[in-house]
Amino acid sequence: MIMQWTDVLGAEGVSTKDIENMGNEIENARMGFMEKIKNGEIGFTNLLNVDLGNYDEIKKYMEEFDYILIIGMGGSILGTEAIHEGINGLYYNEHGFPKVYFLDNSDPEKTCRVLNLIDLEKTLIFVVSKSGNTLETLANFSIIKNILEKKVKNYEKNIIAITNGGYLKKLAEKGGYILFNIPENVSGRYSVFSDVGLAPLSCLGINIKELISGAKIMDKLCKKEDVFENPALMSATIHYLMYKKRKNISVIMPYAERLYKFGMWYRQLWAESLGKDGIGQTPLVSLGAKDQHSLLQLYMDGPKDKIVTFIRVNTFSEDIKTEYGEGNLNMHNLSEIINSEQLATEMSLTNHKVPNVKIILEELNETTLGMLLYMYEMQTAFSGELFGVNSFDQPAVEEEKKLTWRLLEEGNYGNKRISK
Amino acid sequence: MIMQWTDVLGAEGVSTKDIENMGNEIENARMGFMEKIKNGEIGFTNLLNVDLGNYDEIKKYMEEFDYILIIGMGGSILGTEAIHEGINGLYYNEHGFPKVYFLDNSDPEKTCRVLNLIDLEKTLIFVVSKSGNTLETLANFSIIKNILEKKVKNYEKNIIAITNGGYLKKLAEKGGYILFNIPENVSGRYSVFSDVGLAPLSCLGINIKELISGAKIMDKLCKKEDVFENPALMSATIHYLMYKKRKNISVIMPYAERLYKFGMWYRQLWAESLGKDGIGQTPLVSLGAKDQHSLLQLYMDGPKDKIVTFIRVNTFSEDIKTEYGEGNLNMHNLSEIINSEQLATEMSLTNHKVPNVKIILEELNETTLGMLLYMYEMQTAFSGELFGVNSFDQPAVEEEKKLTWRLLEEGNYGNKRISK
Repeated sequence: MIMQWTDVLGAEGVSTKDIENMGNEIENARMGFMEKIKNGEIGFTNLLNVDLGNYDEIKKYMEEFDYILIIGMGGSILGTEAIHEGINGLYYNEHGFPKVYFLDNSDPEKTCRVLNLIDLEKTLIFVVSKSGNTLETLANFSIIKNILEKKVKNYEKNIIAITNGGYLKKLAEKGGYILFNIPENVSGRYSVFSDVGLAPLSCLGINIKELISGAKIMDKLCKKEDVFENPALMSATIHYLMYKKRKNISVIMPYAERLYKFGMWYRQLWAESLGKDGIGQTPLVSLGAKDQHSLLQLYMDGPKDKIVTFIRVNTFSEDIKTEYGEGNLNMHNLSEIINSEQLATEMSLTNHKVPNVKIILEELNETTLGMLLYMYEMQTAFSGELFGVNSFDQPAVEEEKKLTWRLLEEGNYGNKRISK
Repeated sequence: MIMQWTDVLGAEGVSTKDIENMGNEIENARMGFMEKIKNGEIGFTNLLNVDLGNYDEIKKYMEEFDYILIIGMGGSILGTEAIHEGINGLYYNEHGFPKVYFLDNSDPEKTCRVLNLIDLEKTLIFVVSKSGNTLETLANFSIIKNILEKKVKNYEKNIIAITNGGYLKKLAEKGGYILFNIPENVSGRYSVFSDVGLAPLSCLGINIKELISGAKIMDKLCKKEDVFENPALMSATIHYLMYKKRKNISVIMPYAERLYKFGMWYRQLWAESLGKDGIGQTPLVSLGAKDQHSLLQLYMDGPKDKIVTFIRVNTFSEDIKTEYGEGNLNMHNLSEIINSEQLATEMSLTNHKVPNVKIILEELNETTLGMLLYMYEMQTAFSGELFGVNSFDQPAVEEEKKLTWRLLEEGNYGNKRISK
């Protein structure tokens, strides 16, 4: 359960000297963000101090149900999914209990299919929206509510609403649902360690205490003043310097399938936090070793517009021996193969002058996953200071949301045939 | 089943004049690729003329089995997965028959979990590798074979090998497996309409004939000389011009979850085909409307380094009415919501001067999916000519593959602790 941090630096990447040359800029970034915590503007770091006892109650409450349904978009759901899959692994619904479904889109086929797979009477429903007014969340929830009203007596006991206000809060108060609050100073994409993540995750067998203990270990490291001792500050600085050298793409490449959804969580965090005012670095998730057969050619030999972060897991929870019959290549564990592939890719990228960084997890469990998620929250917060943007708002999407509501009012779904 | 093509052009994007100004360059690209077909160098377009009768036999053969296992990497498996999920939809294994698993990594936990979920005796196994020497494919297959040898009599009847040579071909010939050939002049990422895709897909209830008929409709369109009548040539030209204007990222954004795996297939096609010699455009898959809550902020207000392609589906196979209780926003179908969101996002990106293109499918079915995949194969082939790269090889990854084999021989898995 040790997290190791190493980096490959070089003339084409970031050198130790480049970092030292930044002088006060790094310390100012760190202090700038710490000030926002101190004055209460930003609250996600305080989530680690909350009493976790309540989650035992939720877990117990869950025992009456066979299914979990989580309704939410973006930061209301991506972190939960990342931790669920990161710990419970692949194909969970094909063998695990309780089964869980994530309604995170306005795709009608998805909603219809999920409704065919669950028994709503036996389903505990988490409906999550910070604003309480998220279009897709309200739409999906209203569909579910319509069915519950017709079919299930006292259905309000099936619903847990997690919100800070808006229409969802009104609905919850009127309907008598269990209601949890999201603190005003915790924005959606930094909310995984609040009830948003912890309430449903405690029903999915996740050890919440270890998750938070991992985040706390990382919190200590991320308070260190020396950038070389502070992984989040170090990674923020490297990414900032690389962005200034025209690396406008940040690739995250975990060599463990369980970390793919973590990558999707990171994608939102990095894109929505830094992408504004003409600034921003586009996040891209690659899965090792799989995507070596898909994207590696481009990374190695395409434009030098990327910085790559490897995440490797030294010890897997299960392993199996292979035999592939040629020469002395017999009898390796699959874990040895995937890890050799990570190393070979790292060496090849370095040879091709593609800057890369590596995070090593001895094992992937609640503690290390808690460390990893929290590290990225801190890295993103520090990066906001370095890039000079507000990493806690998302003004441009608000504009698009208003337009959608207007088009819906007008009945304009864009289905008009366009000639040609 | 009409495919509509429209584009949003403008000063910040590509104007009709920009395209006209290219003069012979476009026609030369088209002719350059057509020449490669004529002289037999490139074979994927000929796949459409193959007799499809054999697939009825394979389908019948499948009736003896309860599970399908497909082992392969990159182009050997991504197209099959794209069409399977594109037609059979989400959560297929939780209600569909036969269940299907894709072994497409060297992740030990994934392989172990799949082995726990299937009964190998009742499993039809497709092992797919053009070269016949793909490390992960051989590794996974050897694990399966070891188990079969111990547990299943006459297990060779469970295996269909699809390859062009190498160690896999030797194994197949020695073991007496059913053996299909991949033509030498069809490279992996263009092989979905060969046995690579069609053999397993015919066992998964896909209407192969309609799939191919869609590809044929598109083939005719893609032979048109006038770029404004030829969707693949038009899209290739737009992407090329945008790349020259420093748009180094190509976002594909389907508004239908069933098309997500199509996006993953496209990712390999675009990245591996064009990413070489310092050239290339990085593909990124976003899922609408979901990723509006994740990446849209960056697309709208971040650096102007992207061209976005929307794919929308006008009519979904299932739909459901919602009610979300405020003002006159009551009672929309979810399909209306997702399609309004597509339109709003398109309008917002255009307002923010982000160039975007739109592909409209009236419905998503075998015919339109066949059209879509074939269109992208042709677009990529034309783009190779425009970008001036060989879009059918992947020299850089060959280097990394050799290095992995060497590290494995040396027993170097990179697990040594690196001091911080």
